[in-house]
Amino acid sequence: KLLFHQIRQKGSKDIFADYIILLRVPPMKNLPAADKEKHKKKLEETCRKVLYRLEEAGLQAEIRRGSDQLVFIFVLCDLHRLKREVETSRIHDWFAGVRVKEIQDDNEVENDEPLPDSERLRLIYEIITKPVREKGAGINPGLGDFELVESIFLLQDSEYNEEWIKTWSTKWIIEKEDLFRLRNHFGEKIAYYFAFLQYYCVWLIAPSIVGLFTWLFLFEYSIFYGVSTVLWSIVFVEFWRRKEYELSVWWGVRNYSRVERFRPAFQEECYISDPITGENKPYFSPWRRWLRRAVAAPIIIMFSLTLSVTLLFYILLNVIMSDYYTGPFREELIYLPTVAYCALVPTLNMFYTKIARRLNEYENYETESYYEFNLSQKIFISNFLIANLSIFFTGWIYIPFNYEIGQFLGSFFEIFGLSLTFESVGPDRLMNEVKYFVVTGQIMSLFMEIGLPYLLRAGAVGVKKIQRTTTKDDARNEDESAFFKRIRKEAKLPVYDIYEDYAEIITQFGYVSLFSVIWPLTPVAALINNWVELRSDAIKICVHTRRPIPYRADSIGPWLENLDLLTWLSAITNPSLLYLYHPTSKAFLSASLIVMMALIFCTEHVLSLVHYIVRQMMYAIPNSADDYIKEQEYKAKKRLLEKRAPA
Amino acid sequence: KLLFHQIRQKGSKDIFADYIILLRVPPMKNLPAADKEKHKKKLEETCRKVLYRLEEAGLQAEIRRGSDQLVFIFVLCDLHRLKREVETSRIHDWFAGVRVKEIQDDNEVENDEPLPDSERLRLIYEIITKPVREKGAGINPGLGDFELVESIFLLQDSEYNEEWIKTWSTKWIIEKEDLFRLRNHFGEKIAYYFAFLQYYCVWLIAPSIVGLFTWLFLFEYSIFYGVSTVLWSIVFVEFWRRKEYELSVWWGVRNYSRVERFRPAFQEECYISDPITGENKPYFSPWRRWLRRAVAAPIIIMFSLTLSVTLLFYILLNVIMSDYYTGPFREELIYLPTVAYCALVPTLNMFYTKIARRLNEYENYETESYYEFNLSQKIFISNFLIANLSIFFTGWIYIPFNYEIGQFLGSFFEIFGLSLTFESVGPDRLMNEVKYFVVTGQIMSLFMEIGLPYLLRAGAVGVKKIQRTTTKDDARNEDESAFFKRIRKEAKLPVYDIYEDYAEIITQFGYVSLFSVIWPLTPVAALINNWVELRSDAIKICVHTRRPIPYRADSIGPWLENLDLLTWLSAITNPSLLYLYHPTSKAFLSASLIVMMALIFCTEHVLSLVHYIVRQMMYAIPNSADDYIKEQEYKAKKRLLEKRAPA
Repeated sequence: KLLFHQIRQKGSKDIFADYIILLRVPPMKNLPAADKEKHKKKLEETCRKVLYRLEEAGLQAEIRRGSDQLVFIFVLCDLHRLKREVETSRIHDWFAGVRVKEIQDDNEVENDEPLPDSERLRLIYEIITKPVREKGAGINPGLGDFELVESIFLLQDSEYNEEWIKTWSTKWIIEKEDLFRLRNHFGEKIAYYFAFLQYYCVWLIAPSIVGLFTWLFLFEYSIFYGVSTVLWSIVFVEFWRRKEYELSVWWGVRNYSRVERFRPAFQEECYISDPITGENKPYFSPWRRWLRRAVAAPIIIMFSLTLSVTLLFYILLNVIMSDYYTGPFREELIYLPTVAYCALVPTLNMFYTKIARRLNEYENYETESYYEFNLSQKIFISNFLIANLSIFFTGWIYIPFNYEIGQFLGSFFEIFGLSLTFESVGPDRLMNEVKYFVVTGQIMSLFMEIGLPYLLRAGAVGVKKIQRTTTKDDARNEDESAFFKRIRKEAKLPVYDIYEDYAEIITQFGYVSLFSVIWPLTPVAALINNWVELRSDAIKICVHTRRPIPYRADSIGPWLENLDLLTWLSAITNPSLLYLYHPTSKAFLSASLIVMMALIFCTEHVLSLVHYIVRQMMYAIPNSADDYIKEQEYKAKKRLLEKRAPA
Repeated sequence: KLLFHQIRQKGSKDIFADYIILLRVPPMKNLPAADKEKHKKKLEETCRKVLYRLEEAGLQAEIRRGSDQLVFIFVLCDLHRLKREVETSRIHDWFAGVRVKEIQDDNEVENDEPLPDSERLRLIYEIITKPVREKGAGINPGLGDFELVESIFLLQDSEYNEEWIKTWSTKWIIEKEDLFRLRNHFGEKIAYYFAFLQYYCVWLIAPSIVGLFTWLFLFEYSIFYGVSTVLWSIVFVEFWRRKEYELSVWWGVRNYSRVERFRPAFQEECYISDPITGENKPYFSPWRRWLRRAVAAPIIIMFSLTLSVTLLFYILLNVIMSDYYTGPFREELIYLPTVAYCALVPTLNMFYTKIARRLNEYENYETESYYEFNLSQKIFISNFLIANLSIFFTGWIYIPFNYEIGQFLGSFFEIFGLSLTFESVGPDRLMNEVKYFVVTGQIMSLFMEIGLPYLLRAGAVGVKKIQRTTTKDDARNEDESAFFKRIRKEAKLPVYDIYEDYAEIITQFGYVSLFSVIWPLTPVAALINNWVELRSDAIKICVHTRRPIPYRADSIGPWLENLDLLTWLSAITNPSLLYLYHPTSKAFLSASLIVMMALIFCTEHVLSLVHYIVRQMMYAIPNSADDYIKEQEYKAKKRLLEKRAPA
């Protein structure tokens, strides 16, 4: 029997499965016999259930032992089942307004749009995961009866990957077609990330030129540069909003959230019968969710305050050690802040993330997009604090109140009999800080993303060689053996986390829009970083992670809101930075709070107005996506009228 | 020939025409014969053209002389033509997403929804006015060849009117069905006004109770009242936004702007061929419009500044005369401010309105809604200034800087050798001002709307009796004669101006949300006024204006934006009023600018956040309109799937 030895369309003779369901068996060596038996039975039951469910859902499956601790269940969807699913899903989409092109009357899917890899795999994934009542298999890793199922995963397509990295690393600009190919392979969610990164990268050229010009020819803290940065941020965000919408039309995911399924982990209060369709539908009261959110909010606020205080403690410690402290053990104590930071901040952040995840789970969102939206917003708070608090402190507190802080610390340390030297700190300090965050931070993160996994894997290989374990699998020939080895290898890779990548880019956008007036080369550094990032993220997805499930998305989601927020903040930071540090005012030496507040109040409102006008103007630009929608509507309308005429 | 002696469905024997096109002949008595001939020829040509166009468009028409200076052209649309129009329009609506209910396959309009009066009359009006290329008659009063056409107008339906006023004046609360009947008669635009007024009226009950309680039991400038007013404003506006949307679904006008026609006065740059339909379509570059708006904006700003300065001049004059001046002719000069006001403000306002109208025309909007939106916003600026500037001046400048202003005026008048007595003015002054605007203003406007037209008409009748003119018409019998008389009478009435009514209500909402903390009985006064207004506006439409053309609308349009703006302003006025005048702070005696600014800054942002959360929560409430849309979509989907199944 040679199941899954399917010959693929490309003509290669690869062994092939659509999805592989991975069951992890807990190590049983050191267990008593009774427990062993129990575990074995449970495993058998799970396997039987998975196979039964897959068969019921109309999928083909084959089970094999992959290693001591792994069981592979290969899943394949035949053409017939797939066709049925494609048809239902496309009709569903059309009626919800997701799909724009009208469904033709004839019955053949082939006459419709081609079926990209991403859509095929998404639909099969949906069959596997959606509940039995919707004619799916209802298999969701870790939930209910499927506790032993570790994941449903997808093998990398090495041919596609090679070509992808080759094309992208040999061209300057990623084009529309490249993104479309990416969307056809990895799905819209990932394609949106790259589309945003590419768009942002191109838009960065403008402030880079202005920044370079400012750096070369103008005074520091140039008002011209500050104003143009804020305006650029506003215009960029609005243009992206538009671009995002256009992409959603071209990619056929507009209004996608309307047809999104319930999350498997969503816990309904009760089932209610839908008054329209008569179907039983899980329900969770929105008011209860708001109540839960009201419970979660103070916890989140408390934790972010704790994080802020810890960060401020580190910042202050750092300042004391580097600028003031001259007492005993100075050479050794200089490392104290770094040690404190490493000991406190990552732990706290991890803890915060855990809490945020738990609270988000507790808030019980219906769909994955809502869940992710709210989780991202929660986690972004800590990201934002870690990335920006130090600059805020230096710029708005440390330098303006330099003397007072020195005095206070002096009298404080005197109590312990320690002496401090008071050194006045100027705007240079702020620039160094921004430079550090922008340049060092980006290089570090690039290394963490691309270099470190290589090193870690090299290390792991070394360790393995020493262990010399043999893996027991039941491959029947060499082809299968190689295939199983590849699966084991890819199963070890982590799942691609799009959150990290977005957070990095948005944080960088924050540096450009909030602080680049301090160091006008910030956009240049960002531009270079992003050009590299676009390619290095491709490598990361191909080499360092499992192949992502091709989910849909109709926007970059929560990040658009964060962009708005940063744009708004930039209308506050820029004028106050210019007021404080402009060479003619040098207000940081004797700032007037009232002037600063009036300034902030004015710029904030003026820029809200500008934002409003820009948004209005965007509507005025003809939009090719809307034209496409209109065209399709017109065609459908015409056909309907023609049909009615003869009667 | 007894054209238009149609028997209506109701069974009455009224003489009847759908529309009456009114041609006004300029008075020719004192003209030389040549000019007379020219005029006559022109009139004949116009009449012929109108009749020809109406016939081409498939409408029936009959022409009659109505008086010396009036020509009536009666227009009637037969059932066949109407059916065709209804069908096309409903299909059009369905495809644009305006109509929710699916169009059935069978060919009969009768099986579809009933045809309300408003839809019938709107469609006929559209046939008369839409361009020839769209199979209309293209007759637009005052434009192109139709310079002599004064208006296309509609006769009041006295039966409906009587019943309307009777039901509304005998019930406390206007119900959903009442509004639906109104919509079926007068169209959505007018129904929206009454729906908003009714909704607002009901919502006013809450702050009225709180206000009464505050007035009876709490200190003046109650923080509790201030906070609850601002929150009420936010919640009210958001609830109305939702209500408005629901109404648009129930009334079948959701997304109406998508199918809106071009304004007749819209001046295209050129015709472009639509890439989709291939039709020639008038086009005006949006960039050129933005350029024109950029030209218009400074003019508008300049004029509103001029108006502000004039108003401040009047306010100051008023203050001087009533509070300070004790010199010669005091008794006479006390009327100087009022005289100045009457001489300056209405003239200036009229001039401003004219300029605004001209500029708006110049900006050349494609559709009536856009045109009105922008015109309303322009005119609302002056309305807002006239209604609120005085209170702003008294509250934030006059009372806090009372002493300084007194000093300044004293030394100023000394130059002229005039003596002033300095009288300190307290918060009472502010309350009196608010009371005056709320109570006196409302009573005044009620009289202007309802009482004055009666008086004026009574006067006009008196004048007419003296003139004793006989009117020459060519009515053929007594019925017709009476009919013509009625037409002449209604033709004299002004066109209903919905702008005025909205402006009044929104201004009142401004008093409640911005200033009612000064006088907590404001919402009570507003509630009483609105209860009366709801009925008096009905009388106004029935008795004092022509019957309005039943236009469509899918929202209250610009006024929603103004509500948002006022809500935002209330987050600034309330905290600063409380800070200045709260009995424990009495900061108006020695206000600290920095405290006030910090306070405003905080409350503004906190309330933005609250607004955001409230808006998010609104999404959580299940929406019956959305359910209806879903149900219709589900039905259509099911039918399509059933159709496809057998093949």
